[in-house]
Amino acid sequence: MQTPASSQLAPSQRELFQLTLRLADDALVLGHRLSEWSGHGPMLEEDIALSNLGLDLIGQARMFYDVAGAAEGRGRDEDELAYFRDAGAYRNIQLVELPNGDFARTMLRQFFYSAFMQPYFAALEKSPEPRLSDIGAKAVKEMAYHVRHSAEWVIRLGDGTDESRRRMITALDDLWGFTGELFEVPDDERALVDAGIAPDRAALKPTWDAHVARVLREATLDVPKPRGMQTGGRSGRHTEYLGKMLAEMQVLARAHRGVKW
Amino acid sequence: MQTPASSQLAPSQRELFQLTLRLADDALVLGHRLSEWSGHGPMLEEDIALSNLGLDLIGQARMFYDVAGAAEGRGRDEDELAYFRDAGAYRNIQLVELPNGDFARTMLRQFFYSAFMQPYFAALEKSPEPRLSDIGAKAVKEMAYHVRHSAEWVIRLGDGTDESRRRMITALDDLWGFTGELFEVPDDERALVDAGIAPDRAALKPTWDAHVARVLREATLDVPKPRGMQTGGRSGRHTEYLGKMLAEMQVLARAHRGVKW
Repeated sequence: MQTPASSQLAPSQRELFQLTLRLADDALVLGHRLSEWSGHGPMLEEDIALSNLGLDLIGQARMFYDVAGAAEGRGRDEDELAYFRDAGAYRNIQLVELPNGDFARTMLRQFFYSAFMQPYFAALEKSPEPRLSDIGAKAVKEMAYHVRHSAEWVIRLGDGTDESRRRMITALDDLWGFTGELFEVPDDERALVDAGIAPDRAALKPTWDAHVARVLREATLDVPKPRGMQTGGRSGRHTEYLGKMLAEMQVLARAHRGVKW
Repeated sequence: MQTPASSQLAPSQRELFQLTLRLADDALVLGHRLSEWSGHGPMLEEDIALSNLGLDLIGQARMFYDVAGAAEGRGRDEDELAYFRDAGAYRNIQLVELPNGDFARTMLRQFFYSAFMQPYFAALEKSPEPRLSDIGAKAVKEMAYHVRHSAEWVIRLGDGTDESRRRMITALDDLWGFTGELFEVPDDERALVDAGIAPDRAALKPTWDAHVARVLREATLDVPKPRGMQTGGRSGRHTEYLGKMLAEMQVLARAHRGVKW
């Protein structure tokens, strides 16, 4: 029987499941979006780079699904969690499920996401929960590259040709309203934050704001005015795009359910 | 003015262009086919593995296009060679352009190709032409993994369930007639072979035959009977599938021709 003291220290398995599912779903959905560029980029070099970013994220998703499956304790493995949940059961933010659009938009989203996740993983690395700190230690290095690579493109395109600048301004206007979800702390995550097990997403906002402002300034772009922010992804309310993406991603696994290859 | 002696030693730039274009096109086309699996595999782990195999091949293609572009001397870079040639100018074997089909077929093709390219690159590493030996040294390690990974799957699926075995037998029957092109030595390549600069593709056949026979035996599959072999890829005669694949691969680069990102 658990004592009250130990239950305060150990993360509730249910909360741990929810936390890691959120992190896994964000990474899987964005990783899948990046993989859609594979073989369709405007340059061979960047085609390879985008694929590698995607593979990093799908690798992160696998690690988080592994912890999620164990925490849930119902025997669902990474493939079960990735391929056999419908859109309403996904807990990713809407930012990552939006279609890629053009290269400018893809890179701006990658910058928004990785400028948040890089410090998030740096904080996660300090978690007393060893499975989380292990993932944080690995992922923080990957995201340091993502944020550097994507920031360079935001600057190059924003401060580039008339056409690339026009595209980056459009992307900024379209995506800005989806950045608010990055900082939402769902109720059941608050307990893990208070226990020091999970980083506080809301507390990372000043760092993110400053980083984004710095890069946009270098890209000669204005930081958008405050506006109403989209919400809903963390409770399973998604744009139509997620369902379409999942249908495509899941078709083969579902057709072969139970097949041991 | 070249002396007869030095012209025997130095590879003709035209022959070097043709050789490296063949090697690059094989790698790019098969790499693109593998990348089509990205995000559509039956398992997350294998999805990542297939993407990584594809990235190896596209990386090899880039290195060969680089040598090809320099040898040609008309200023065409890797992107120009990859994105701005039509199917009739591609010099890959037909084996690599065929659609992926199912997972069994994808893996059998990968085994056929890498069981040839691994010893090919081992021989290329000994070329006195330093740009070729450098590529050989890097690629031989990559292909050693490709051949191991794909052979394991051929064995697992061939000696697997009724369904996986049936699929592998179908794949074997469909693909066997496309393996003859692996060993063709085009006339203008013969001079490079005779000069010791390029490996002799035909001479690698006994090694390949023995390797394939060994793996098929372990997979409890019969080596197909000798039959007429498809040919034409090296002189630009391709199946309808290559044109479709290139159209999809090239559309974005062509739409943005001349754009400096």
